[in-house]
Amino acid sequence: MGDRSWWGWGRTDCALSDDECVALGARLPGLSSTPLPIPRIEQLVVPQARITPPAALAPRFSAAPADRVGHTYGKAYRDVVRALHGDLACAPDLVAYPQTDAEIVDVLDWAASRRVAVIPYGGGSSVVGGVEYRPASGGADHCGVISLDLTAMDRVLEVDRVSRAARIQAGARGPVLEDQLRPHGLTLRFYPQSYEFSTLGGWLATRAGGHYATLYTHIDDLVESMRVVTPVGTGESWRLPASGAGPSPDRLFLGSEGILGVITEAWMRLQERPRHKASATVAFEDMAAAMQAVRAVAQSGRHPANCRLLDPGEALLSGVARNGEAMLVVGVESADCPVEGQLAELLTIAREHGGARCGDGDGADRSAEAWRTSFLRAPYLRDGLARMGAIVETFETACTWDRALDLYEAVRASVGAAVEEITGSPGIINCRFTHVYPDGPALYFTVIAVGRRGQELVMWDDVKIAAMEILARHHATVTHHHGVGRDHRPGYDRQRPEPFAMALRAAKAALDPHGVLNPGVLVD
Amino acid sequence: MGDRSWWGWGRTDCALSDDECVALGARLPGLSSTPLPIPRIEQLVVPQARITPPAALAPRFSAAPADRVGHTYGKAYRDVVRALHGDLACAPDLVAYPQTDAEIVDVLDWAASRRVAVIPYGGGSSVVGGVEYRPASGGADHCGVISLDLTAMDRVLEVDRVSRAARIQAGARGPVLEDQLRPHGLTLRFYPQSYEFSTLGGWLATRAGGHYATLYTHIDDLVESMRVVTPVGTGESWRLPASGAGPSPDRLFLGSEGILGVITEAWMRLQERPRHKASATVAFEDMAAAMQAVRAVAQSGRHPANCRLLDPGEALLSGVARNGEAMLVVGVESADCPVEGQLAELLTIAREHGGARCGDGDGADRSAEAWRTSFLRAPYLRDGLARMGAIVETFETACTWDRALDLYEAVRASVGAAVEEITGSPGIINCRFTHVYPDGPALYFTVIAVGRRGQELVMWDDVKIAAMEILARHHATVTHHHGVGRDHRPGYDRQRPEPFAMALRAAKAALDPHGVLNPGVLVD
Repeated sequence: MGDRSWWGWGRTDCALSDDECVALGARLPGLSSTPLPIPRIEQLVVPQARITPPAALAPRFSAAPADRVGHTYGKAYRDVVRALHGDLACAPDLVAYPQTDAEIVDVLDWAASRRVAVIPYGGGSSVVGGVEYRPASGGADHCGVISLDLTAMDRVLEVDRVSRAARIQAGARGPVLEDQLRPHGLTLRFYPQSYEFSTLGGWLATRAGGHYATLYTHIDDLVESMRVVTPVGTGESWRLPASGAGPSPDRLFLGSEGILGVITEAWMRLQERPRHKASATVAFEDMAAAMQAVRAVAQSGRHPANCRLLDPGEALLSGVARNGEAMLVVGVESADCPVEGQLAELLTIAREHGGARCGDGDGADRSAEAWRTSFLRAPYLRDGLARMGAIVETFETACTWDRALDLYEAVRASVGAAVEEITGSPGIINCRFTHVYPDGPALYFTVIAVGRRGQELVMWDDVKIAAMEILARHHATVTHHHGVGRDHRPGYDRQRPEPFAMALRAAKAALDPHGVLNPGVLVD
Repeated sequence: MGDRSWWGWGRTDCALSDDECVALGARLPGLSSTPLPIPRIEQLVVPQARITPPAALAPRFSAAPADRVGHTYGKAYRDVVRALHGDLACAPDLVAYPQTDAEIVDVLDWAASRRVAVIPYGGGSSVVGGVEYRPASGGADHCGVISLDLTAMDRVLEVDRVSRAARIQAGARGPVLEDQLRPHGLTLRFYPQSYEFSTLGGWLATRAGGHYATLYTHIDDLVESMRVVTPVGTGESWRLPASGAGPSPDRLFLGSEGILGVITEAWMRLQERPRHKASATVAFEDMAAAMQAVRAVAQSGRHPANCRLLDPGEALLSGVARNGEAMLVVGVESADCPVEGQLAELLTIAREHGGARCGDGDGADRSAEAWRTSFLRAPYLRDGLARMGAIVETFETACTWDRALDLYEAVRASVGAAVEEITGSPGIINCRFTHVYPDGPALYFTVIAVGRRGQELVMWDDVKIAAMEILARHHATVTHHHGVGRDHRPGYDRQRPEPFAMALRAAKAALDPHGVLNPGVLVD
């Protein structure tokens, strides 16, 4: 993928041009009139690599600046700004591209013997500092850092058509694995926003959330078994549809964010490709009414594939609504039977709670389509706005329904106040519900504000502290699906029950006794 | 519950009379003609208690023989036979009935200071040796044993009607918690076969499986948060509908079988009480055809509440079929809409795979009813047969669909051969599918054979070894929902990935540094 952006989201050919950045920036008064330039890699100052790979492994390693620079950061707003400013002090010394488990074992052994940090890297789409090295955060510093890029291990190795499952290597990005499943008529049907630029292993390691809004939302529930290479040995759970034998082994590694081992493959549960689809958009006067409706849908025992509630600001920004309505985008799918009846039932529930369906047929589809396009385009727009000096980032959470409206309002008020205090002008704080469960929704907030060039990161960090504070005060999770990484450590440490923290630290010490794996993440 | 049986399943007034035992035993040629007598507690030799409780805690402890005898075993066939033979060598020295978390903390502190083993005890319905002390299995022996009975902590403490969740103490048995939820119009809707005689805490600690056959089958998925008292501190996870923050803390304690801490309460997800129900029974010529149909149902994206496949032997034994058919009992439920359409769709799938619906209306319901009655009555019949000298026990597993027919046939063949070799005559080996998933079924086997009095346990242990061997050879789980306890340790150790075993041992050492909690279970 030579056209991956090293500094921003996705593909270079999808990034906004300078002119587009200027046009976009003009919509937010107070921004700069010229975009931050994108440095050329050859202009960048990349620190001297401190380690050289052992001869036997040398063919799998790269010390090329393009590789090291491209693996320095994830894809958060903080990462984009730092990259644009050419801040590469913590670039990994080497990037490894193993092709087999045995090579990973060799890399881990070598790293342990030299006290070299190893950061497992899938698609590099972390937005929480999950794939970067931070000297201060991992206790005693390491002698070097390896970014362990898994994307050379991207094959579907076996397909079990009868049980509808496949053994897939962890380095497969979304389109890469779907291309291999398609001839079998099957799909993993897991579509995080990062789908094109993230890997199965990354999804598993971070408990990623997919596009589908109900039922099986997290990758966790799609796992039949996993293979994990740890510094003290390799383990593979049995392929089981369900088991009650002790605590689930897979659930310890799901969400372990690379600190306990490297996930190298997994048997994943698959589905038939859906052939029947229908969707509609429903308008509500305000968020309170919309939330009642969405709760009723979530508690109805029906399981819409899509159930996304946009608050008035989000609906306006994404072009789905024009008049301050909250908008619900609801969709249903099936592989084997028509879904119009199911959609009608869901629309009845929405109507009973004051929802008005928008347009008919084509009209509704256009709204849904407008939203989807905007969803996939959003990260590129973010990068364009960042280049114009905007502070533009998201954070997400989940809580139970009894607290959801309070939380929504409290976050908008507190984060809004923080933005105004920190930046000197009011910002945009929008929200959508990305997933809904019978007992509560996942809330996804977008913040857009005018930063002072050179101060953007400090300003955003202060806004984020305010956001994390209000989430914690409501006992809303520090992350529903972005993960913890390094950025969410304070909130995570607060949220995590102490006995579990002790157990996790003990597990880390047992499996990674030299502390080489992704230091600073989840535990110290 | 003064009428709980101390030696056998459930309530004393539901146990078979001597005459009923004789009549039942007459149906299996070769059994004894007289039932083993039930010893009176006052006749039993109970070892002297080796410890006395500290004065401050004394009111919560009992050293009464009835308490100690009633807490010596779970309710497996092995337990019933040992109890009937008056084998009480390993009776706990004391039974504690704490009423608060603080009292549990005190008990654990005291136990740690004296190297006294503490066995958390809910309803005592373990069928895998989960609640008994075994001197050899826990490394260095303990100076005494406490059975920690949680049933004094059985209140529903809070109900959140909006999010449909409740905070429930772990010692609440099924009917006790449902009685408290009913006024709120809500239900946990979790019905293991042991429902009347097992507790929420026991379900959580063993990852119990409920009656419902698809979707949310294990208690795991109904948990919003948990509170756990460990020897090094108490932890409580936040109430969250979903989270992606690190490995799930709750999932480490779910299935931990009392070795990491004592679960004292949990916020559980509830449902509206179902008002619409429909069920039907479908006959298939053989298991191969029936399995195809059940797989199609499980992979259809529909989620029947009940989907239980009885093999020809099981269908015959439970009175659901008479002519060697495999029988599928399928049921649907909803709180808010009619379910006939859903049932019709499921029956269409069954018919496409060669199924013939049995009778109409009442006829079908009678079959379903016959099966349900037999299901709840089964443990009492087992006890009656055991008193007549029969070997009568169950074991259960799960595997993916690609292996399911092979596994079914291999278990019947191997275990059948083992029974014949060990007992000298052929036994009955029946199977039902208790739960079905898109990627595989849970298989539940019943073994009935003629034992030699006094040799029953040795004989059964040998049969069980053969069963575990064939499960392991097929990589089928050692347990789908009964748990590991002490009886399944060999199979569990074989199945569990070694890195996870290392992590679990490390977690155990961190949370229970004196090794007092349920020694011998899951880890040494």
